[in-house]
Amino acid sequence: MAVTGVRVPIAFSTIFNKLRLDPYKICMRKNHKNSFQKRIFSGIQPTSIPHVGNYFGAVKSWVDLQNDQKENIILSIVDLHSITVPQNPARLQQQIEESLICLIASGIDPNRTVLFQQSKVNGHASLSWILGCLCTIPQLEHLPQWKEKSELVKESRLGIFTYPVLQAADILLYKATHVPVGEDQVKHIELTRHLAKAFNRTYLNIFPSPQTILGKHKRIKSLRNPANKMSKSEADSKGKIDICDSAEEIVQKVKKAVTDSNSAITYDPIERPGISNLIEIMSAVTDTEPNRIVENSAGLDTVQFKSRVSEAVVEYFRPIRKRFIELREDRSYLHKVLKDGEEKAQKIADETMHEVRNAVGLNVY
Amino acid sequence: MAVTGVRVPIAFSTIFNKLRLDPYKICMRKNHKNSFQKRIFSGIQPTSIPHVGNYFGAVKSWVDLQNDQKENIILSIVDLHSITVPQNPARLQQQIEESLICLIASGIDPNRTVLFQQSKVNGHASLSWILGCLCTIPQLEHLPQWKEKSELVKESRLGIFTYPVLQAADILLYKATHVPVGEDQVKHIELTRHLAKAFNRTYLNIFPSPQTILGKHKRIKSLRNPANKMSKSEADSKGKIDICDSAEEIVQKVKKAVTDSNSAITYDPIERPGISNLIEIMSAVTDTEPNRIVENSAGLDTVQFKSRVSEAVVEYFRPIRKRFIELREDRSYLHKVLKDGEEKAQKIADETMHEVRNAVGLNVY
Repeated sequence: MAVTGVRVPIAFSTIFNKLRLDPYKICMRKNHKNSFQKRIFSGIQPTSIPHVGNYFGAVKSWVDLQNDQKENIILSIVDLHSITVPQNPARLQQQIEESLICLIASGIDPNRTVLFQQSKVNGHASLSWILGCLCTIPQLEHLPQWKEKSELVKESRLGIFTYPVLQAADILLYKATHVPVGEDQVKHIELTRHLAKAFNRTYLNIFPSPQTILGKHKRIKSLRNPANKMSKSEADSKGKIDICDSAEEIVQKVKKAVTDSNSAITYDPIERPGISNLIEIMSAVTDTEPNRIVENSAGLDTVQFKSRVSEAVVEYFRPIRKRFIELREDRSYLHKVLKDGEEKAQKIADETMHEVRNAVGLNVY
Repeated sequence: MAVTGVRVPIAFSTIFNKLRLDPYKICMRKNHKNSFQKRIFSGIQPTSIPHVGNYFGAVKSWVDLQNDQKENIILSIVDLHSITVPQNPARLQQQIEESLICLIASGIDPNRTVLFQQSKVNGHASLSWILGCLCTIPQLEHLPQWKEKSELVKESRLGIFTYPVLQAADILLYKATHVPVGEDQVKHIELTRHLAKAFNRTYLNIFPSPQTILGKHKRIKSLRNPANKMSKSEADSKGKIDICDSAEEIVQKVKKAVTDSNSAITYDPIERPGISNLIEIMSAVTDTEPNRIVENSAGLDTVQFKSRVSEAVVEYFRPIRKRFIELREDRSYLHKVLKDGEEKAQKIADETMHEVRNAVGLNVY
């Protein structure tokens, strides 16, 4: 660009200090009340159909929170995050729809939860840019996920480095006060809090300091490799049970689940991870404590127990699978859900961005 | 976020190769014609009123291009770039308006040039995110401006690192084919071309490969330190002449311009940078070759020559200053200009983003 002005990064802290003392802003800040309505935000990547681990680790807790009827929940299919790794465009389109179907089939009610596709709502990327101007490079470099990922590739892409800032924008755009996360995301919510504070301090106090909600459920492990958690990217597809798997598929996968040579049913996640994982799954689908499952399985051998587990899993997911198959045929309904969700989310996003733009000085008229 | 899916950066190149061979995409690419209408994009940072160096280095060439009547010009007040360094919000708001006023006062006609405020148009930050998922960290680390800036600060902010990607998005969002730039920005336009190619190769051939237009005018130097170019951030405000300075201010600044002890008027930018800079300025405002200026100034001493220069500068900028003062009072007109420009720019941006979203697989309905 021809006239880019001059950037004077050396005086950064001095200027920031100056800004903090600006009487105009101090006055505005004093008049600004910050009481934030409780609001839960969560994002799901449209990478593929959720498996049982995703379901009990995340999806079910959103449904439970929603059904409490007291919670204000915003749930985003975060497609902009999914392209930090290469995606086949046709498949991505399909996966966005499938994620939507799975959420509704699992019990998310679009009339009670704001359910929308991230990239359809203006504000996520813009707020991410604004927050990125407050975020330092070392803050991102120190995140454990970045350290892990950047060691694996020679030339990391920018999206992999900066996505925690987009994640912060996703949360703050809706002034979410609570974010359900897995342990691997705790540091990212810390960054979100940090960026919210940086914005509030630099410009105007408009953002809450979002808290994490850590899931109660233990992680469900891979059926083929019970040392690791069940993962969407399992090399062996028999390692995971998708929530829409047919009864036959579930039976086959549980039958092939890795266990040890001891055929007794005992719960010991360290010494006997395979059978303990099946007990965890049984515990989840029957809402029964693992010890109780063990008691109820006295006298059964592994084969018999596996048969009970697959039966219970099939029963649990039967209505979800049925609804999944029905919804898949009803594209006009799905698109209506996405459109309605987009409108609701955009309304909140527009309000926040209006405040943000005023605070930063971008609103001329 | 609770379900973040799994990122598998190790398989990056393999997956990209796979995507390139996807028959669905090859077929689409074949059917896609890429003939691009000539379109010039440029951005101006709303950091302060342009000085004479900015005017002859950039603003005047946009006005000349526009007045050729053949060119399709898009001119953006790039406010999102200005916040990569701290800004006082109230001052930023004012500076956005002042930049607009200066451009119109200098001859930019909002009926012929699409003139708009960057942050008002949806698409810049979103496209920047999408391009950032195709850009590698080393590509940004190798940019000379980053090397320079990151050496000056201990904890650089992300915006300073990633702004060349936003710049690429600014240009590609309008499918600009030509970008007038200073030499310090040539590498950034190379990055823009690289990202356009990366997108075209990975997804679909929709972006042109923008070319740089290097300005004809030599750089006008600081009046107080003629070794350096005239800069918005001059420590001594007498080093630069703003295009809206009063006649008195101009006379004073030229009078105090640093020259050497030789009172003859000769053109030698290396040995006699001070007087040569004044000759350059005279050359610019009278549209006369420096050598001709020297001939016409035979017998004058420095004091007399300075008086001629300031007279010519005052005359040149008199109508611009007059228009500036008038426009400053007409805020409803200014806001209408911004609103109209925003609509025109948004229309083009929406078309591009629709294509981008289709190509990436984000358009479900």
